[in-house]
Amino acid sequence: MRSTARHFQRYYNPEVGNAIRMDTNTNVLGSNPAAAKFLASQKMDVNDYPNTYSDGLRDALADLYDLERENFVAGSGSDELLDVAFKTFTEWNDNITVPVPSYTLYDYFVSMNGGKACAVDLTDDFQLDVDALLRPDSKIIIMPSPNNPTGNSFRPKDIEEILERSEGLVVVDEAYGEYAGTSMIPRVDEFDNLIVMRTFSKAYAMAGLRVGYSVSNKNISDMMNCVKIPYSLNMISEGAAIAAVGDQDFIRRSVKLVNDNRTPLSDGLIKLGFEPFPSDSNFILARSPIDHKAMTEGLKKKGVLIRDFGSKRRTENCVRTTIGTKELNDILLAKAEEVISGKK
Amino acid sequence: MRSTARHFQRYYNPEVGNAIRMDTNTNVLGSNPAAAKFLASQKMDVNDYPNTYSDGLRDALADLYDLERENFVAGSGSDELLDVAFKTFTEWNDNITVPVPSYTLYDYFVSMNGGKACAVDLTDDFQLDVDALLRPDSKIIIMPSPNNPTGNSFRPKDIEEILERSEGLVVVDEAYGEYAGTSMIPRVDEFDNLIVMRTFSKAYAMAGLRVGYSVSNKNISDMMNCVKIPYSLNMISEGAAIAAVGDQDFIRRSVKLVNDNRTPLSDGLIKLGFEPFPSDSNFILARSPIDHKAMTEGLKKKGVLIRDFGSKRRTENCVRTTIGTKELNDILLAKAEEVISGKK
Repeated sequence: MRSTARHFQRYYNPEVGNAIRMDTNTNVLGSNPAAAKFLASQKMDVNDYPNTYSDGLRDALADLYDLERENFVAGSGSDELLDVAFKTFTEWNDNITVPVPSYTLYDYFVSMNGGKACAVDLTDDFQLDVDALLRPDSKIIIMPSPNNPTGNSFRPKDIEEILERSEGLVVVDEAYGEYAGTSMIPRVDEFDNLIVMRTFSKAYAMAGLRVGYSVSNKNISDMMNCVKIPYSLNMISEGAAIAAVGDQDFIRRSVKLVNDNRTPLSDGLIKLGFEPFPSDSNFILARSPIDHKAMTEGLKKKGVLIRDFGSKRRTENCVRTTIGTKELNDILLAKAEEVISGKK
Repeated sequence: MRSTARHFQRYYNPEVGNAIRMDTNTNVLGSNPAAAKFLASQKMDVNDYPNTYSDGLRDALADLYDLERENFVAGSGSDELLDVAFKTFTEWNDNITVPVPSYTLYDYFVSMNGGKACAVDLTDDFQLDVDALLRPDSKIIIMPSPNNPTGNSFRPKDIEEILERSEGLVVVDEAYGEYAGTSMIPRVDEFDNLIVMRTFSKAYAMAGLRVGYSVSNKNISDMMNCVKIPYSLNMISEGAAIAAVGDQDFIRRSVKLVNDNRTPLSDGLIKLGFEPFPSDSNFILARSPIDHKAMTEGLKKKGVLIRDFGSKRRTENCVRTTIGTKELNDILLAKAEEVISGKK
């Protein structure tokens, strides 16, 4: 087995049963309606290969962002685009700078492609430590904004400073970008070292279809398209994604639902003794008033899944929950209260 | 850009228009009916993530082959599994042995993952040169059987000898395995260095859905599943593939159609002056009686796409055509005759 991959373990894969899922940060409004309509009515001939570089979806995205098809690379989930970015731009043993805490899969993508992930701590308020992140020996700096699992966006001026001072590429993973007020996508032609990642798995409510894309200047996108596996995005998912891009009203409603329910959920958690961190996304990280394992296991027994980050450095005793509808949040808070009070 | 990837160019991506496609070796019976029925009736909630390791499809395949779930890795096309195999088992600069002529994308997968493709010529009758293939410095030997673009299967005894004598892994890519009389899949528990690849893009008539899988002993499969991107196979494609595995009658009819039409097409090509090579798959490689570019360009102008291999070593002046239905083959032969005779 590849020497850099030997520490890999299977990915988070809980037994779900009938549990309420507050652990995956998908859209609690439910499946994307435009995608569902497309799926119910599509008459594609699946015997043909898909378009090699997903030109239809890239055109729809170019329209949405007022950019051009050549600024985009489309793939099977933003995970594929992360893989492609490392494959395209790193050599064996290259250093990749990853803030801590951030997305757990970055280390996997770096190691899988023969690189070394160099951890750099965020500041105490989970913001970017710009000077520390600018390591001279780093090929790529990768960061999620809004950050996962902390939930906050990074300050645009910090990201800009990193882009200006970094000699390597800067990947800004905006998996939760629709929920944030800011995005780096309009700036891709301004910086020659910026790659923005986006997914259809969160606000777009299409995790089951595996669609993601990267946005960058044309030079970067062209290199990535040459490296990407041809027609990696299947035609049904591409068609559904094109339909979903055309229904921005669903995205606006989804974002409003989260914005309406964020503060009430946060307040409810505070009342139970949690210490929630600021969120610009559709989930909240919070320090648990009781042991993190007792909290997540207790909630699981009561049919609610949340994600446990309590054993990791910097998020000691913390758990992460999706921001649900009012109904889902009320269930979560009621069950958490039962767990805290020891009620069976 | 990664040093080993700088020679990459965009993949074969012809302008198709209304042309008859005899260039992709997909199933000329048309879309998989069980998959189409599944797609028309499916009510999946695409807001959920797919099963992380595609357990449903792996169970269906285990039933089909009388093996176990743990013998399989499922992914977004067999191309993903090829990528995963190199990611899992090779280090930077490792040598990978690739027969010539064979599938053009192998060099891409090897280079993309930092390896070096070492070409070893097939014998004059396009069979395996066992001694030459067993290079002592090679980490993996990869071969398609039936071979693409030549169309013939390799002799099972040669593959067995390579498996027994090789110190590295042996990947047997059975993309066209349903059309061949033999398969290495029943032997995966017998050899600790065998990986068989299969796709739903050819006989299964589902290229648009991007589904593929590998079969190997459980130890190999487990390592590959750890390296594979979690839930890379989307839920709709997985569901369609499970339905398609349940309809083996379609596969039998598809194979019979090819077997019934192979000799008539080959005979028709011979009458026109082509020199076809023996085929155990759903396509035929043939040396063209006129210049290969004049042949493929001439057919393209008349609305028939075939694939040109005439500029490559060992397949000089050769073209490759899918074996169609009687109707499609008659059109191909009639148009080829017009091209040869110079008729506009």
